[in-house]
Amino acid sequence: MKIARCTDGGTPFWALVDADAQTLRQIAGAFAEWAPALTRAIAAGRAGEGRAALPLAGPARALAGVRLLPPVEPVNRVVVAGANYAKHLAADFGLQSPPQPIAFLKAYGALIGATDALRYPPLTAELDHEVELVVVVGSAPVDPAAPLDSVLGYTVGNDVSARDLQRSGPAGIGMDLFAAKSQDRSTGVGPWIVTRDEFPGGSPHLRLTLKVNGQVRQDSNTSEMTWDVGQLLCFVEARSSFAPGDILFTGSPAGVGQGTGLYLQPGDVVEAGVEGIGTICNIVGPRPGA
Amino acid sequence: MKIARCTDGGTPFWALVDADAQTLRQIAGAFAEWAPALTRAIAAGRAGEGRAALPLAGPARALAGVRLLPPVEPVNRVVVAGANYAKHLAADFGLQSPPQPIAFLKAYGALIGATDALRYPPLTAELDHEVELVVVVGSAPVDPAAPLDSVLGYTVGNDVSARDLQRSGPAGIGMDLFAAKSQDRSTGVGPWIVTRDEFPGGSPHLRLTLKVNGQVRQDSNTSEMTWDVGQLLCFVEARSSFAPGDILFTGSPAGVGQGTGLYLQPGDVVEAGVEGIGTICNIVGPRPGA
Repeated sequence: MKIARCTDGGTPFWALVDADAQTLRQIAGAFAEWAPALTRAIAAGRAGEGRAALPLAGPARALAGVRLLPPVEPVNRVVVAGANYAKHLAADFGLQSPPQPIAFLKAYGALIGATDALRYPPLTAELDHEVELVVVVGSAPVDPAAPLDSVLGYTVGNDVSARDLQRSGPAGIGMDLFAAKSQDRSTGVGPWIVTRDEFPGGSPHLRLTLKVNGQVRQDSNTSEMTWDVGQLLCFVEARSSFAPGDILFTGSPAGVGQGTGLYLQPGDVVEAGVEGIGTICNIVGPRPGA
Repeated sequence: MKIARCTDGGTPFWALVDADAQTLRQIAGAFAEWAPALTRAIAAGRAGEGRAALPLAGPARALAGVRLLPPVEPVNRVVVAGANYAKHLAADFGLQSPPQPIAFLKAYGALIGATDALRYPPLTAELDHEVELVVVVGSAPVDPAAPLDSVLGYTVGNDVSARDLQRSGPAGIGMDLFAAKSQDRSTGVGPWIVTRDEFPGGSPHLRLTLKVNGQVRQDSNTSEMTWDVGQLLCFVEARSSFAPGDILFTGSPAGVGQGTGLYLQPGDVVEAGVEGIGTICNIVGPRPGA
């Protein structure tokens, strides 16, 4: 099933989406009220029962009548795992794959929905794209013996990064991942969560694609991850606990501007897609002061 | 004035504290509802009027009857600025002062209140203390021409850090500040916010002290910051915008275990204090599995 967070201009709400019919029905309540039970139902192989138990409210309405928001609430964490695709590290940064991943937090204010404008941030001249599979944690704690049981589903992310700011971190401390990746209204997430029961068991093997103005820039598969979804969840959980509704970016494959020199420019149409989930399309806004 | 966030076992609430009388009165509403107006009143030199306009509710009650929580709501960001005391960098890390600070996000779940137990995290054997001045942003956006006008006040923080995990970050990427500093229930913040009108104008010059079992480990002054409060606020705001209620850790001076080898141990009584604000006292819990 597809679960979106959306607004019709008022208070954001969650909704069950029927993509074929292009309609949605509102899910009553905050994520923390219904998602843990649904996630447990999916983990138990009873997705249909979980869906039937969702507290739907009101009639079906047109999908086109709402704006799709990032499928995460402001009280939740946006965790980003990096260094997870060896070719990206080698080709784009000249780095060897490390013995363990790196994780960090992204500011909620960095997020935009599936079709929102992508703000060109100040201070940077090297704005870059990173298509990623994003995991939505639906129940907690994450059990190290069965980490995927905590996954409600997956969505698409474009972890837009200001590369010059990324390199501006102090020597001996490291990359400035906050300045690079927490810029206001720059990171697309969506269009919705596709629940885990729609994919084969285990860490998903899904094609990732990123296009700029129709040209393919990244084309890879989550099967090339160095650490799979379960390993990333355990890595983070052992350091700082997940709560239901937290999301986890899982790293980006090769093909970014850092390696090719093709950075994002004002007016660029940026499409990020993951097989079986959907596509987000964000247009880069003007340079500040331009 | 002193403003605390507290609980008597139920829903957390904000309160105006009378430390002399050891009482408090509840402030009605969320931080975002009353703090911006109070912050603007303080910036305009009308702190008394701002206090008179606070929506107080209910009678005065005993301070001893509540538990002091971190003075920040779960929807807000915890931003940490580092590399801000040259002697700390040189003595404890062997690093030169960089041309600019570094900022990153700490997980909300890492925070504990003024007298809460400090969880000894798994995976580390080098748990360290860092007393810091913490800035509470009361209004936004931060104006680069008058950044302190956005400051409601200050509180005390102990940015407890797992040093071995800090060093575990991948080569070429840098320190793992997430693993080091977002460990669940490890970072003391409080006991309350002292509003900016109680200090002289400009970035505060306040003594910072940290004691372990009564022994002084850190003893410095915020006047030794490389970048003052206004500069740090502008540095962060230019990269990722503040919202009212966000807090900013401002770095720690020399004297931490990373330099001395004296790491925190289970049972240690850790007192972090800032002149004119107060002291937090957290006792280190047992090692996991011990």
